[in-house]
Amino acid sequence: MAMTVSPLARPFPALAALAGVRIGTATAGYKPWTRADVLLIAFAPGTTVAGVTTSSRCPSPEVELCRERLGGGQARALVVNAGNSNAFTGAAGRAAAQAQSAAVAALLGCDVAQVFAASTGVIGVPLPRDKAVAGATAAHAALGNADFHAATLAIGTTDTFAKAASVAAMIGDVRVTLTGIIKGSGMIAPDMATMLGFIFTDAAVAPAFLQAALAAANARSFSCITVDGDTSTSDTVLAFATGAAANAAISGWESPGADAFAAALADLCRQLAQLVVRDGEGASKFIAITVTGAEDDRAAHAVAMSIANSPLVKTAIAGGDANWGRIVMAVGKAGERAERDLLSIRFGTSIVAQDGAVVPGYDEAPVAAHLAGEDIDITVDLGLGSGRATVWTCDLTHGYISINADYRS
Amino acid sequence: MAMTVSPLARPFPALAALAGVRIGTATAGYKPWTRADVLLIAFAPGTTVAGVTTSSRCPSPEVELCRERLGGGQARALVVNAGNSNAFTGAAGRAAAQAQSAAVAALLGCDVAQVFAASTGVIGVPLPRDKAVAGATAAHAALGNADFHAATLAIGTTDTFAKAASVAAMIGDVRVTLTGIIKGSGMIAPDMATMLGFIFTDAAVAPAFLQAALAAANARSFSCITVDGDTSTSDTVLAFATGAAANAAISGWESPGADAFAAALADLCRQLAQLVVRDGEGASKFIAITVTGAEDDRAAHAVAMSIANSPLVKTAIAGGDANWGRIVMAVGKAGERAERDLLSIRFGTSIVAQDGAVVPGYDEAPVAAHLAGEDIDITVDLGLGSGRATVWTCDLTHGYISINADYRS
Repeated sequence: MAMTVSPLARPFPALAALAGVRIGTATAGYKPWTRADVLLIAFAPGTTVAGVTTSSRCPSPEVELCRERLGGGQARALVVNAGNSNAFTGAAGRAAAQAQSAAVAALLGCDVAQVFAASTGVIGVPLPRDKAVAGATAAHAALGNADFHAATLAIGTTDTFAKAASVAAMIGDVRVTLTGIIKGSGMIAPDMATMLGFIFTDAAVAPAFLQAALAAANARSFSCITVDGDTSTSDTVLAFATGAAANAAISGWESPGADAFAAALADLCRQLAQLVVRDGEGASKFIAITVTGAEDDRAAHAVAMSIANSPLVKTAIAGGDANWGRIVMAVGKAGERAERDLLSIRFGTSIVAQDGAVVPGYDEAPVAAHLAGEDIDITVDLGLGSGRATVWTCDLTHGYISINADYRS
Repeated sequence: MAMTVSPLARPFPALAALAGVRIGTATAGYKPWTRADVLLIAFAPGTTVAGVTTSSRCPSPEVELCRERLGGGQARALVVNAGNSNAFTGAAGRAAAQAQSAAVAALLGCDVAQVFAASTGVIGVPLPRDKAVAGATAAHAALGNADFHAATLAIGTTDTFAKAASVAAMIGDVRVTLTGIIKGSGMIAPDMATMLGFIFTDAAVAPAFLQAALAAANARSFSCITVDGDTSTSDTVLAFATGAAANAAISGWESPGADAFAAALADLCRQLAQLVVRDGEGASKFIAITVTGAEDDRAAHAVAMSIANSPLVKTAIAGGDANWGRIVMAVGKAGERAERDLLSIRFGTSIVAQDGAVVPGYDEAPVAAHLAGEDIDITVDLGLGSGRATVWTCDLTHGYISINADYRS
């Protein structure tokens, strides 16, 4: 976690330990640094797991291992490497990931199919097998010594602050906790998610329901953020449910507490996703874009993402420029139905354009005041139907160029 | 034409006058400046016309007028306004464009359906009707006083150099000339084209064939460039054929000289498209991206555009960073079929990655030397089929941010 801290940073929340979750970190030394760069989390037997992974056609071997192992629905461990994504590393990279998983399984005495893995960092350099195994072994020896804050620090790369959140839900009369940690902060794009997010709950939840609830939450959170429109090869969000809270297990939407759990999970995912945007590379403004009046929700999402990914919109907001013409442009290029003469655009609470033209007597002062703030709200009504979506992004600044062009990665 | 001249600029070519084409410019004063900002070109009777326009769902009224009038296939005039795009300006903007066209038709004694129009500049401010009519009237009075260089200067906005090209072709034993002028330089994206490009030829060409040849050329030129992935509301390319060369008219692909004419037109369009990239906002490198081995040409184009529009790829090249992992990322997110283990990537003549991993003994020195130059070639082979495409883009630099965020537009 280097660089200047994002001006949009949020303080790390107070997070209690979670029953059934033991955390250890260690330094494998994937880069010439002394910070912890391996995270190992051991779960109590019976922990269920669900996950969503990148839609990239060139996923990392860790992503492939997670996909293969999610079918079993059971997890005993999560191992995460920071500083090397192991993506596009061929047979050597896959072998290193498998060796690390096998070492963890041996140490914990579990099936390797219950070990989940993720790596983040530079693409194209095979994960060094010896360092990966030694790091995981050291992290195993340290199990119980680290907390969620240490875990979050261990998985960061270009992140400028540690990002986590926690929510609670009642399942019957049992209070369960859902805690998530997440990292960004570049190569963040539609289609799935942030690079790596991990969610832990002491609730008892059947894997199929956990997967369904996570997929629903993902569609309204990680799939609704973008920093630069670039989808990572390693995007992974995993949810682990230890069952230690001993609620009546949730097996489907009809189970008592299912809706409350799903709502809490969705809330947690939205908080985590927004934290990633708040640490977007070079970000100085947090931008919420809401599209209403679309033909359907899918179309609303596509239009909102077109606005959120437009470099001209993002640079205008960086400059505090109420250049709503660029929003019209981004609506127009989205490929979804739009009628220029039905379109209206709002910054904050100020309507700037309506019915295909600027509003009569348009007063830029309140718009400029809104854009001078840190949290920007843009609302576009297409006037066609009842589809709606909200997405979150940040502005595009010199900071993004400096991070990605001026330094060699 | 303000700002520092692009380091990728090319000198303006020597362009002869073209029979059947008379040029006039004037100052309407769309902005507080004294430069010419209205261009009027009058064509000899019998001139045919073809055009391609933006795929934006929010096109300008000028784009709509062009589409309506292209059906007639005949042109007597082209009027272009710079400094105001007239897009998203409702009924007032459309009325102003129609009034300007009607004034031109009255001055030339032609049908208004033979007057073509385009405007470029800020979105959302209605074209001032009185200035537009007065400007066109003054440009009419000046017909014959201006050349292609003056015409190119009159249509520029954030362009930093005047962009034009000319080619010749033989139709039977008649030599015909094709000359084009074009402007950029932001809001340049896939799907169609540069903001405004105008092509003039003295060849005799039937409108249907002119349209077919232009559409084919467009698919290999303007549709293959991107500066920032943002598609303008005003993109328009029009081709006018005066017939003054008195060749046997080309009416279809079987006509003598049809292939030569289409090849010349495609060559001209590619030159013009590349000039737009060379004036991309903030550009310091000209990047050609070739994708081979795709399932088909369409898939190759989609993958190439995904690479060309990736801010992480573009910033890496700005920084001279041989970060080929970002190219893997952009291939992966393109949504087309890709097999990591079949992929190979080349910078210039150096293969950096093959078969899903970095090449053994990878030597970065020749790659770094290539990236230190001004013209960058990236070749990606997908190893799947015979589809191929080449697209052109520029890098993403602090200059782009400065142009679009630091200044109010």
